[in-house]
Amino acid sequence: MSPIESIDRQIVDLLMEDGRMPCAEIARRIGFVSERTVRYRLDRLRQRGIMRVVAIPDPKSLGFTVVADVFLQVEPAAITEVARRMTEFECVSYVSCSMGEVDVSVQVVGRDNAEVYAFVTDVIAKIAGVRKTSTVIVPQVLKDVYHWRIPSGACVNPGAQGRMR
Amino acid sequence: MSPIESIDRQIVDLLMEDGRMPCAEIARRIGFVSERTVRYRLDRLRQRGIMRVVAIPDPKSLGFTVVADVFLQVEPAAITEVARRMTEFECVSYVSCSMGEVDVSVQVVGRDNAEVYAFVTDVIAKIAGVRKTSTVIVPQVLKDVYHWRIPSGACVNPGAQGRMR
Amino acid sequence: MSPIESIDRQIVDLLMEDGRMPCAEIARRIGFVSERTVRYRLDRLRQRGIMRVVAIPDPKSLGFTVVADVFLQVEPAAITEVARRMTEFECVSYVSCSMGEVDVSVQVVGRDNAEVYAFVTDVIAKIAGVRKTSTVIVPQVLKDVYHWRIPSGACVNPGAQGRMR
Amino acid sequence: MSPIESIDRQIVDLLMEDGRMPCAEIARRIGFVSERTVRYRLDRLRQRGIMRVVAIPDPKSLGFTVVADVFLQVEPAAITEVARRMTEFECVSYVSCSMGEVDVSVQVVGRDNAEVYAFVTDVIAKIAGVRKTSTVIVPQVLKDVYHWRIPSGACVNPGAQGRMR
Amino acid sequence: MSPIESIDRQIVDLLMEDGRMPCAEIARRIGFVSERTVRYRLDRLRQRGIMRVVAIPDPKSLGFTVVADVFLQVEPAAITEVARRMTEFECVSYVSCSMGEVDVSVQVVGRDNAEVYAFVTDVIAKIAGVRKTSTVIVPQVLKDVYHWRIPSGACVNPGAQGRMR
Amino acid sequence: MSPIESIDRQIVDLLMEDGRMPCAEIARRIGFVSERTVRYRLDRLRQRGIMRVVAIPDPKSLGFTVVADVFLQVEPAAITEVARRMTEFECVSYVSCSMGEVDVSVQVVGRDNAEVYAFVTDVIAKIAGVRKTSTVIVPQVLKDVYHWRIPSGACVNPGAQGRMR
Amino acid sequence: MSPIESIDRQIVDLLMEDGRMPCAEIARRIGFVSERTVRYRLDRLRQRGIMRVVAIPDPKSLGFTVVADVFLQVEPAAITEVARRMTEFECVSYVSCSMGEVDVSVQVVGRDNAEVYAFVTDVIAKIAGVRKTSTVIVPQVLKDVYHWRIPSGACVNPGAQGRMR
Amino acid sequence: MSPIESIDRQIVDLLMEDGRMPCAEIARRIGFVSERTVRYRLDRLRQRGIMRVVAIPDPKSLGFTVVADVFLQVEPAAITEVARRMTEFECVSYVSCSMGEVDVSVQVVGRDNAEVYAFVTDVIAKIAGVRKTSTVIVPQVLKDVYHWRIPSGACVNPGAQGRMR
Repeated sequence: MSPIESIDRQIVDLLMEDGRMPCAEIARRIGFVSERTVRYRLDRLRQRGIMRVVAIPDPKSLGFTVVADVFLQVEPAAITEVARRMTEFECVSYVSCSMGEVDVSVQVVGRDNAEVYAFVTDVIAKIAGVRKTSTVIVPQVLKDVYHWRIPSGACVNPGAQGRMR
Repeated sequence: MSPIESIDRQIVDLLMEDGRMPCAEIARRIGFVSERTVRYRLDRLRQRGIMRVVAIPDPKSLGFTVVADVFLQVEPAAITEVARRMTEFECVSYVSCSMGEVDVSVQVVGRDNAEVYAFVTDVIAKIAGVRKTSTVIVPQVLKDVYHWRIPSGACVNPGAQGRMR
Repeated sequence: MSPIESIDRQIVDLLMEDGRMPCAEIARRIGFVSERTVRYRLDRLRQRGIMRVVAIPDPKSLGFTVVADVFLQVEPAAITEVARRMTEFECVSYVSCSMGEVDVSVQVVGRDNAEVYAFVTDVIAKIAGVRKTSTVIVPQVLKDVYHWRIPSGACVNPGAQGRMR
Repeated sequence: MSPIESIDRQIVDLLMEDGRMPCAEIARRIGFVSERTVRYRLDRLRQRGIMRVVAIPDPKSLGFTVVADVFLQVEPAAITEVARRMTEFECVSYVSCSMGEVDVSVQVVGRDNAEVYAFVTDVIAKIAGVRKTSTVIVPQVLKDVYHWRIPSGACVNPGAQGRMR
Repeated sequence: MSPIESIDRQIVDLLMEDGRMPCAEIARRIGFVSERTVRYRLDRLRQRGIMRVVAIPDPKSLGFTVVADVFLQVEPAAITEVARRMTEFECVSYVSCSMGEVDVSVQVVGRDNAEVYAFVTDVIAKIAGVRKTSTVIVPQVLKDVYHWRIPSGACVNPGAQGRMR
Repeated sequence: MSPIESIDRQIVDLLMEDGRMPCAEIARRIGFVSERTVRYRLDRLRQRGIMRVVAIPDPKSLGFTVVADVFLQVEPAAITEVARRMTEFECVSYVSCSMGEVDVSVQVVGRDNAEVYAFVTDVIAKIAGVRKTSTVIVPQVLKDVYHWRIPSGACVNPGAQGRMR
Repeated sequence: MSPIESIDRQIVDLLMEDGRMPCAEIARRIGFVSERTVRYRLDRLRQRGIMRVVAIPDPKSLGFTVVADVFLQVEPAAITEVARRMTEFECVSYVSCSMGEVDVSVQVVGRDNAEVYAFVTDVIAKIAGVRKTSTVIVPQVLKDVYHWRIPSGACVNPGAQGRMR
Repeated sequence: MSPIESIDRQIVDLLMEDGRMPCAEIARRIGFVSERTVRYRLDRLRQRGIMRVVAIPDPKSLGFTVVADVFLQVEPAAITEVARRMTEFECVSYVSCSMGEVDVSVQVVGRDNAEVYAFVTDVIAKIAGVRKTSTVIVPQVLKDVYHWRIPSGACVNPGAQGRMR
């Protein structure tokens, strides 16, 4: 059984193509629902937190051509606070806490390597509780969270899987 | 000099709050531009690739409560192909190539640990060219790419930095 | 709400002290239940798989004085089969699959270091699919699975935690 | 020469199937010993510490569906004390000290990843002397200490080995 | 389009053979330029920082037969200062800062292993901010910076590449 | 006893400032030697291999703004051949063989991260015998081989050490 | 109770100073035993394998000034054979098998770093079954097996410990 | 040319078999030298430090059946002192300083794993300056320093190499 109804899934899929597609257009494309139904369901999807519709600026087009993963080892007592502070920096586009060797993972965007290095060395590494940083350049991001579509089946059954557009 | 004009930035910021905000509302909020200007600039931002407006489904709300980073070591000749194939799996929400010890980094979402483990062991690890996988559970993602706002200044000057909302 | 009723918990606790304690004795120790109730609940606990009552031989008393953790890296396609085969060896007391750098973890008991080393080098390391083994001596096991009591509260609230006897 | 007599071994084996099997039943199954002999030998096995008969609660049936190995690096002077404290936590099912890179190994059971992560980050990592923790999810335990049977021969002679039931 | 004109490249190539080759000789070897042009262009190349002409002493000929790479992990706040101090030591021939696990990389030359070891242990390791050093002997340097010629094409097109002389 | 006479050392030092300084100027600067002596000694220094005078092109001025260390693990039988082949690539400025975990160390210069990554992934990683590569960006080189001056004393006596100019 | 009688210990200690000390001299130094007793006990110590008296050549005095530890990772099936072959090389002074990450540890002596590197790269690394070697220079050996004296007490009681002469 | 004369080499070889072989017997075995010559040369070999003749107690025969390598990471300023102190412990049979990840390597002998573990944890790990210890059991030492014979040729020419007896 699907966790989301077929019409809802089609609405999400169309909005992944164009987040500002008018409800009338969505209804037309689906073919058998009214604009009003689309509007009602779209609102419900957002209210339930199943989907958000947002602008995503493109770092590369804005001159932030360098992407780097920075892996932090942090004093145990400071993990939560360090992770929270990381979210506040404008050049940080991703922050997570993880189990394993690394405590906090951060993605940084910068205009060149020197800017990324200066940010890691002069800002991150000096935050209280940060023990060690390791920076790795990410030359290519092939799929990002806004490409992730609601799965149609189980992961382990690749035959049932659709293709990313 | 800023890489983006002030009005454009305000448009992007408002659309990051609500990607379907009508142009009239955006114009009203900015206060001194016409709806027509907003529409024109918004279209231009999208055409130039500076910004996209898209739906982003929320894995957690859909029952995909487990997030994991999977780090792959891959035969050199297979890196590009393995990365490309990773993008096709529905339970994969992120794929990148990186310098350093890890060749391809993948983020996987699953309904529980067993599903993630089965996907890594039965699917990823058996793809030709994959030498070794290492899976790390990610209990918290604090900032994601759709929270990243266009920086107002240089990374290394934290005083000039705004706060993430 | 507790996942297990108070009387059941008391039965489990008493059987952790002595797995062969007669139901009459258990009833007497709890104080307000009949032997028949104890017998009924004890059977139900076992049938539901909430608890088993078993003999556990003590390796040390039998001359198996050396305990070692052996960590295996295994060809991805062979993980399940290697783990299964590990369970069949008499000197292996624990086998698990894990995420992370190690694919299969094994605990081995032996009469001396030479026996453990010979088993790892001559038996484990030669099983098809085993890429690499790393053996670590475990001088002390302070708590084992048969010491684990049903938690009375959440892990993160240490104040609510009882002591291991 | 066997380290344990044949009758004793049969008693242990039967009690590994059902720790509460009555002595009369054990005697009947072995076939040529009296119930009194069984009772006498069973008591002696327990008194000498060769075997214990205990209840083992099943974490999964009680809702503790996540098992994790937590590897601790500890200040040298604190190893013994940290290991001892680990034994006291209700969600900890295994504690050992080992030679090698890791000082103390712990197995944690939790209701979900978040509970395990919170326990590691908020409790374990803050204990005095703990330098670093690394957590690995264990999706499958295939053999546990209560499956370990008294070996009939040497480890390195796989032909002489019985199968785990 | 080449980043440097053909005549300039020929001048640089000839000076890489012999940095003191007279301008007249350079002109003669190129064949269609005057000594005056060579002198003018050579001065311009140096003024623009495209090339320097320098003496490079040979450590081996001077008895410094041992070359070692020393990798430093440094307190984040001290990286810049530690790197700067490293440049001042006479037995240090290379200092760089890098992303990744190592913060500062140093190349040391010495008369024998004992001298290198004493320098690392008694001097480098005691500088404030140095957490850890790791020393690796370099038995052969096959290409050094003074062998690097101005590339004639892109790296990834090996067919277009010349040979090092 | 110094491994090199005082006058020779002065000649080398002056040529490290400017490799094309005329012998007359060198003689004038030293103050008590003839131009002819300088010329004789300079030739002897070069013939004996104690010093070379060469042009060193500056990668940064030529648009090669990214410097990266690439560490190679190589099949034992292929180390010598892989190292030799590395020297032939125009974007490779340094090649060494070392003891330790890494077999061959390479420094690569490129116009941007993408070029370096493409060279490592498409060229280096596909050379026969290369098992694994790890690339680290080098944001700053503070001292290079052409800054290394002939030591005036032992490494371990920092008081006796001069400063790099 | 001591594992060795007091007189025997004194004999061993004196022979550790000078392995060719005549029995008469040993008897005289101990003070209350006859030469004949010394001779009898000395023979018995050697026959029982408690002690050997041997010549130990000194590599440094013979020009073998470089000592290196070489750590080998070996195909599991080849460990025993690789270790055995290592013992045959004249420049190898120590060979052991160990648990842990390294399979075989070797100590090599050579006249200079180049000889050690050539031996590791051209000989060891090419032996069938050797996967990877890592070489570490050993600048100082402070205590060697011929300095080890028969302990007078337990290791963990440092107060009871004598000093190495 | 050999670094040691042929007769000296024969004397050393015979004393490696039996360190107390009388000079008359050595002379007889060599065949063309007088006892006096042997005595003279033997004394000279010892005086020049080319060879020592010593008793080597056998740990295994004395009940020290467990051999372990302990690798220490030490505060840089404490390396020399920690290494020196290690030499004083009776259960320590080898101490060296090395370049690379490990600062001080120690070999420990003990009566069982528990004794070795207690020594490492309670004694070594608590010495000031010791940051981290890692202990690896050594099940087999196949060649030790007293088996090392004076090489007859270069290491890299295995054809010229004799066999260890």
